[in-house]
Amino acid sequence: MDFKLKILGSNAAKLANNRHHSAQIITIENQYFLVDCGETTRTQLNKYNINLHKVEHIFISHLHEDHYLGLMGLIFSMDLSRRKNDLHLYAFPGLAEIITLQLKHSHTTLSYKIHFHALTPGVHEKIVENELLTVHTIPLAHKIDCLGFIFREKPKLRNLNQEKDLSCFTLEQLNALKRGKDIKNEKGDLLYKCEDYTLPPKKLWSYAYCSDTKYFENIIPLIKGVDLLYHEATFLEKQNERAAETFHSTSKQAATIAQKANAGKLLIGHFSSRYKDLTPLLQEAQAVFLNTELALEGSVFSMN
Amino acid sequence: MDFKLKILGSNAAKLANNRHHSAQIITIENQYFLVDCGETTRTQLNKYNINLHKVEHIFISHLHEDHYLGLMGLIFSMDLSRRKNDLHLYAFPGLAEIITLQLKHSHTTLSYKIHFHALTPGVHEKIVENELLTVHTIPLAHKIDCLGFIFREKPKLRNLNQEKDLSCFTLEQLNALKRGKDIKNEKGDLLYKCEDYTLPPKKLWSYAYCSDTKYFENIIPLIKGVDLLYHEATFLEKQNERAAETFHSTSKQAATIAQKANAGKLLIGHFSSRYKDLTPLLQEAQAVFLNTELALEGSVFSMN
Repeated sequence: MDFKLKILGSNAAKLANNRHHSAQIITIENQYFLVDCGETTRTQLNKYNINLHKVEHIFISHLHEDHYLGLMGLIFSMDLSRRKNDLHLYAFPGLAEIITLQLKHSHTTLSYKIHFHALTPGVHEKIVENELLTVHTIPLAHKIDCLGFIFREKPKLRNLNQEKDLSCFTLEQLNALKRGKDIKNEKGDLLYKCEDYTLPPKKLWSYAYCSDTKYFENIIPLIKGVDLLYHEATFLEKQNERAAETFHSTSKQAATIAQKANAGKLLIGHFSSRYKDLTPLLQEAQAVFLNTELALEGSVFSMN
Repeated sequence: MDFKLKILGSNAAKLANNRHHSAQIITIENQYFLVDCGETTRTQLNKYNINLHKVEHIFISHLHEDHYLGLMGLIFSMDLSRRKNDLHLYAFPGLAEIITLQLKHSHTTLSYKIHFHALTPGVHEKIVENELLTVHTIPLAHKIDCLGFIFREKPKLRNLNQEKDLSCFTLEQLNALKRGKDIKNEKGDLLYKCEDYTLPPKKLWSYAYCSDTKYFENIIPLIKGVDLLYHEATFLEKQNERAAETFHSTSKQAATIAQKANAGKLLIGHFSSRYKDLTPLLQEAQAVFLNTELALEGSVFSMN
């Protein structure tokens, strides 16, 4: 199935240059997943004609304002337009307190239900599994507890090879072949080899979102071979001391992680407001890992 | 002294038409007072080149999202740019909880001090008095506790009439004349009449901010004779049932309040997103109270 990532914002905390705080929307077969939710994310969603009610899963990496401050407005806007479908929210427990307190003081009873899935700091675990995909957390190294997220397409069935004579198989056998099983008789002797009657499924995609973090090699085994990697690159390498102080990465460090993890493509983002022109950040990353792009607002990255 | 009001946002809760939520900045002799703080108020302040650090007093009328949701971002941005001067915040106690909780979960110790002045629902009281002005609360009638604010210039000293011979007065007597006192001898007999040696001070300005509220005549005695009145006008009169249900006012009702309070000028705002063209709202108000203007974003209203 198709994977589509749209960047809604990718600026670091200090706002400038008409850029917005971190937010990304992932679309997979009409399922919408929002990753981080900086201030004005609801306005960005409207700008790109994304119906707020279609967003069913929201992931918040950490509780720095530039990654969650748009959430309350989004929750209120969903209520104002009488959302009915459930919303799943994945974040550290503090965010549930922040939401509950604001609903209380505004005397709001939402028109829909929020399922809050409390994340655990420092743990790599599966937090979503449905018919399309799995999502696991990626522990990052930031000033406060912070998690990345890796989205992996669920293994698909093999395709029946229509050029072969399949008339000899029962429906049960055909399903077994699609699941990759050989057909054996009651004694266990091989009758038909799966590979002779089926074609392999399409390649599965995977996407990892890593923001915010200092250079942190522990993530490499968790994202090994990922097709698309978003990694923060707040600074240029010449600001590497500032990056270390603030638990952020340089563009070169992001590219080094992509290279060591053998990623297919790297997207860099979370740009410091000091860089109006982002070309130097891109060039610095490409010198280490050529297949890098800037995660510019409004840009779309697809896989299928 | 000069009073300047700049509108940063005046749309009701449902966002549309590129308009922003309620926020206004009042400037008086280099003192900055922010009234309400919808989402992205920090961006609006930047857009109009208002230094965040100059804002020393923030008033929040009530805890509906479209009136306070920009505050946390503003507080964080002030910290990020290393503000040192104190910030005075006037709001219901719930807002202090909301701020404290978010500072806690982001592990933030602010670079400046917030003085939180807890407001009392339903009470008309003085909450600010300095050398320039006083600010009193105005109890409004909304779905949740809500207060307006009235800013009044402090009484000024009379001006000495330099065309008169003032050489006979001591410094103490001159100060008494400026304060409006006649000069008497020890027995209490009148020696010099204040009015003969001084000219009256310039007229004092006053500004009342009333949002959000249903039509509520109780505010009239509190704002009687105000020079400039901002009153919400969420709906046209033909939506008066919707106005009543939501505890909002129609444009005609806002104008009726202005007329009954004998206001100098009326500004209407808090426009429902259903009105892309605001002219009908203006016309409806002007039919009752001619000196009405729309509180459009970016517009400025001055008094001196």
